[in-house]
Amino acid sequence: MLTRELYNESCKRALGYLQKAGIVITEEEKRNIEVAEYGLGQHEEIGLQLVVYVNTDRCCAKELILFPGQTCPEHRHPPVGNEPGKEETFRCRWGKVYLYVPGEPVENPKAILPKGREKYFTVFREIELNPGQQYTIEPNTLHWFQAGPEGAVISEFSTKSRDEYDIYTDPDINPAQSRKI
Amino acid sequence: MLTRELYNESCKRALGYLQKAGIVITEEEKRNIEVAEYGLGQHEEIGLQLVVYVNTDRCCAKELILFPGQTCPEHRHPPVGNEPGKEETFRCRWGKVYLYVPGEPVENPKAILPKGREKYFTVFREIELNPGQQYTIEPNTLHWFQAGPEGAVISEFSTKSRDEYDIYTDPDINPAQSRKI
Repeated sequence: MLTRELYNESCKRALGYLQKAGIVITEEEKRNIEVAEYGLGQHEEIGLQLVVYVNTDRCCAKELILFPGQTCPEHRHPPVGNEPGKEETFRCRWGKVYLYVPGEPVENPKAILPKGREKYFTVFREIELNPGQQYTIEPNTLHWFQAGPEGAVISEFSTKSRDEYDIYTDPDINPAQSRKI
Repeated sequence: MLTRELYNESCKRALGYLQKAGIVITEEEKRNIEVAEYGLGQHEEIGLQLVVYVNTDRCCAKELILFPGQTCPEHRHPPVGNEPGKEETFRCRWGKVYLYVPGEPVENPKAILPKGREKYFTVFREIELNPGQQYTIEPNTLHWFQAGPEGAVISEFSTKSRDEYDIYTDPDINPAQSRKI
């Protein structure tokens, strides 16, 4: 559960990573950091911090902050109405991130699967992103990612974000409850 | 005219500003920096350096680098086919930028109008952006911007970029010739 204590602590840590990455955010943005706990009670392993810069009907930009080894769980962005699903480009700004998408599975993934949730990770083509490297996820494509041992700050450039439509592989995740305290 | 010498020199200077801003780009991106000279022969005053991260049919992200006092000239992004014009969010990452849009004109603009081109700047609602501050330009809206005395690095988050459709107020600017050497 995302308690007030976990929320405050996660925001504070996230700000530290943004500072390391040299990314400046406003006081208002600091007050509006989002913490995704995903309702699983293992935030150190499965969780994510977000600063949403802009999210209009047409495009969206965010910073994603992952603590060391923290994972954004496997999900996809399905079509909504007449629109194809969300298209996302992840650009690593600081630290390291292991991104997984459908395709030839890597033999020994560098990411460590979150305990007790292993079966809900099903795609294993591995893409390692270091600062300055990026990857574009096509709409409706399963993906998940995990920070390396120092954590990661990732810029996300995308079409409109509609978190409530996201489809997670893990049935215990409720995306509608996962974004904000 | 954008000579090879001006191109090389502008890229080198742009890399220095990215470094000051703590922004990492790949070797390939370094080789693909774009320099807009606009064909006016006054690049110190009217010019722009760009790193394009992604530009798909649906969304686009770039870094814009402006030297001290350098100006991106007034223009708008008209509708193309059935789509409204490009929507852009400018987020200042480093330095300072003065952005001008339609609305109540400021009495004493902080930007200095480029010499001999004053009449091609017609909108004067002033928005000052410092690091962490941003502004979203609606489609088909005239805008121009100038870096402060130290220069500026600006992230642009937008819908698809189609520079060839941009409409500049200054008739001597040919946008089709302005982007790359």
